[in-house]
Amino acid sequence: METPDAALRTYLGRIADLNAAAATLEWDQETYMPPGGQAARAQQLSTLRAMAHDLLTDHALVELLDTAASADDPLTADLVRVTQRDVEKARQVPTTLVQEMAQGSAEAKEAWRKARETDTFATFAPHLQRLLDLNRQKAEALGYPDEPYDALLDIYEPGMTTATVADVFTSLRAALVPTVEAIADQPTPDDAFLHQPLSEDAQLAFGRTVVEDLGYDFSRGRLDLSTHPFSTAFSIGDVRLTTRVAEDFFPTSFFGTVHEAGHGMYEQGIDEALDRTPLADGTSLGMHESQSRLWENHVGRSRAFWSHYFPVLQQRFPDALGGTARDAFYRAINKVEPSLIRVEADEVTYPLHVMLRFELEHALLNETLAVADLPEAWNAGMEDYLGRRPPTDREGVLQDIHWALGAIGYFPTYALGTLMAAQLFQQIEHDLPDVEAHIANGDFAPLLEWLRTKIHRWGRRRTAQELLEDATGAGLHAAPFLHYIHAKYGALYDDLPAPEAAPAA
Amino acid sequence: METPDAALRTYLGRIADLNAAAATLEWDQETYMPPGGQAARAQQLSTLRAMAHDLLTDHALVELLDTAASADDPLTADLVRVTQRDVEKARQVPTTLVQEMAQGSAEAKEAWRKARETDTFATFAPHLQRLLDLNRQKAEALGYPDEPYDALLDIYEPGMTTATVADVFTSLRAALVPTVEAIADQPTPDDAFLHQPLSEDAQLAFGRTVVEDLGYDFSRGRLDLSTHPFSTAFSIGDVRLTTRVAEDFFPTSFFGTVHEAGHGMYEQGIDEALDRTPLADGTSLGMHESQSRLWENHVGRSRAFWSHYFPVLQQRFPDALGGTARDAFYRAINKVEPSLIRVEADEVTYPLHVMLRFELEHALLNETLAVADLPEAWNAGMEDYLGRRPPTDREGVLQDIHWALGAIGYFPTYALGTLMAAQLFQQIEHDLPDVEAHIANGDFAPLLEWLRTKIHRWGRRRTAQELLEDATGAGLHAAPFLHYIHAKYGALYDDLPAPEAAPAA
Repeated sequence: METPDAALRTYLGRIADLNAAAATLEWDQETYMPPGGQAARAQQLSTLRAMAHDLLTDHALVELLDTAASADDPLTADLVRVTQRDVEKARQVPTTLVQEMAQGSAEAKEAWRKARETDTFATFAPHLQRLLDLNRQKAEALGYPDEPYDALLDIYEPGMTTATVADVFTSLRAALVPTVEAIADQPTPDDAFLHQPLSEDAQLAFGRTVVEDLGYDFSRGRLDLSTHPFSTAFSIGDVRLTTRVAEDFFPTSFFGTVHEAGHGMYEQGIDEALDRTPLADGTSLGMHESQSRLWENHVGRSRAFWSHYFPVLQQRFPDALGGTARDAFYRAINKVEPSLIRVEADEVTYPLHVMLRFELEHALLNETLAVADLPEAWNAGMEDYLGRRPPTDREGVLQDIHWALGAIGYFPTYALGTLMAAQLFQQIEHDLPDVEAHIANGDFAPLLEWLRTKIHRWGRRRTAQELLEDATGAGLHAAPFLHYIHAKYGALYDDLPAPEAAPAA
Repeated sequence: METPDAALRTYLGRIADLNAAAATLEWDQETYMPPGGQAARAQQLSTLRAMAHDLLTDHALVELLDTAASADDPLTADLVRVTQRDVEKARQVPTTLVQEMAQGSAEAKEAWRKARETDTFATFAPHLQRLLDLNRQKAEALGYPDEPYDALLDIYEPGMTTATVADVFTSLRAALVPTVEAIADQPTPDDAFLHQPLSEDAQLAFGRTVVEDLGYDFSRGRLDLSTHPFSTAFSIGDVRLTTRVAEDFFPTSFFGTVHEAGHGMYEQGIDEALDRTPLADGTSLGMHESQSRLWENHVGRSRAFWSHYFPVLQQRFPDALGGTARDAFYRAINKVEPSLIRVEADEVTYPLHVMLRFELEHALLNETLAVADLPEAWNAGMEDYLGRRPPTDREGVLQDIHWALGAIGYFPTYALGTLMAAQLFQQIEHDLPDVEAHIANGDFAPLLEWLRTKIHRWGRRRTAQELLEDATGAGLHAAPFLHYIHAKYGALYDDLPAPEAAPAA
């Protein structure tokens, strides 16, 4: 006879297996699948996802959870609590609405691609309108403390509220806009030497070497090519990365690889006791993004890091970089320049791209902004925050796929991750005073060990807020990020305004 | 309201999706999965297979089949008939037996690997004994016309009987053993030039070029590396091949790739109307093998083929093959030499390896041979048929994985495929008198079209016997193969005995 705990684990294991299979099929779709596989693959994924959803919302699971709720070991208690929340959310949204969302986003994705090609927002507008309506229905089905956006945000960033995001973003904006203005008035550093053709294989090999040094475990992972970089986990023992290569701009693949390795090390670091349960995942998208940003920016774009790796890079690419000074290289990879495209933005301007999207989708959901007025609102916002007005919608409101996927409440997590990364790294510098020296020696083990202990191993057992408070003694706030930006970029540019003190949330 | 036909299709589509997902996970396991993924992958596969099995044996499907049985279109009638047979077979074998087989073969596989390493058959023997017992139980559960082996053979080669196999093999043996003896007395052709190191990439590229010429469609497939070559289909639009490369023996990857492409073209040629149903598969393992053997041997090892490709090969590998004469090359790739290892055997000796395995597993199942006596029976058989006695069990009875997987009744299909290939090719030469000239011109379209029309498109709608009879006017018989061998190898070796006439089965 199985214990209640074991029976629950067996049941959840089947769901985990279906989800892992779906993730493997998606990985294959983005990496190796031939074009002829497309139609059947969509059906296979739909079948797997539907079966996982059916198991998650079956009353049998409710009963298993109720029975296991009396278990007194802390892991089972966490498992029951987190799974109960997943089950509730899944049961709250009617199947018809789930299907309408899937249908609506499949059509919207297609319309979005065409609208982008032809630069005609109007053809995408009715699809966005439909997805907003469906998202409002979804928010009503899920319920919320204060406003519909809370319900959607909570899917991606459990426990986070619209009010907190708005507060944190207000202090961020107040400091960043003048910083960007001050930088925009100054000459941009020369980065022509970054725009030289380097072989794809050599670029990938360098990225592989570095992320293996950082601590990404290739015996439990891979690095492949895909159009859009991502990381994905099929189990704690199989966490994969993809990257893309721009032949004549090495930072694209390099920082992309380090970024995804940050995500990957998070998943590789989860306690193995959580494998095949809903706890074996990042605790929120924001926390996930904090891990990628921490490795990409706080480590990968630091002086200490390149004091170790620039000689290696020069050795690998002597023709292209043999004559470049390390300081010039450091300045080039940290060039700040207000740009139109979010995914190409530097770390100073990046949060402003995200804030604009948050404000717009929040207003759209609350119907204080009409879909028809969105392009103009976008362009005006870009001018306000970054001093640049997109000449086309393709380079403006149509650049991201998220809204076409029906994802409202997702964007803020990118900026929350950026803030969490800075807050964690500030604490790391406090807890590990030698961390910079370690990085300069290519020794990342103490840093990774800190992250494993404080963040990774917990999986979803604790929320992002709980982990942050335990690790740093404070809730999410913007001050560490603003201090980091001021210190780093104040050394690269003249006369940056002092960051305002931002209170903890 | 769905029609009975559509409801059945929807139900079967979900099973097909689960099986396709499992096949994708298995492909990944053999090609790209990191070692850390092993344990979780085994669980994922077990979950997917169990869910597919549950759906296949659910009473709901029996009812759907009964309702759809009244449909009067021929495709639905075939679908119902073939699926009913699958369902019956699946329902006849008790779940506990399925689980015991899975458990038993997992343990036997492990024991087999160790027994091979240490060359100690005795440690594998109890596992084989257990699997034989389970196979006897399985045969009893399935039922059989004449003897237990019939039930097992029928799984892999529907409609084939032990008596027919024994008959056909008897005439085959009578002709092949003296042929092999006659050849073994003559000097072997020099093939030293085949044993030169050639780069892996260049070998793969040549294989890719050729199989694309043959008609394997890369927009609906791929070629990757794996330890053991295989082909697998996730849908008619996604049929993949793998191969392996021996750096210093080019035939390994080349003929391996052509062989797998033969399998792959079969699956790519199935009528698209059958996709996502149980009909979208090869009709039997023998017929599947006939397609790989036909392309590998009747096409790929023919004079006509190399009159087109040898200049291409020389151009690709001028250092290694620039000085070799085409005729010497043709003789080298058709060298006949009795060897110990089945998978390395030439096309003359190959069927003898298979016949030995058939006789032994047949005797083991019927308990006329004891497991303890198997190694000696193996060695004696090898001496009888091929004049060679394995010095170790590793090169003898422990060389193949099939018995460790619990597969009894599988081996004969390799030789049946060889015979079917010859029988089909004889008919092709009759129906397409210019086929040799087409091959010599690198034009494979008429040949592929013939195979598509007569064999591929049917999927499992007709049995192998029905397809053979429709295509060639006769049931399976050994004469075409023996004539082919006599004609081809009589031109390469002196004084081969004439093939005996073998009656059709």
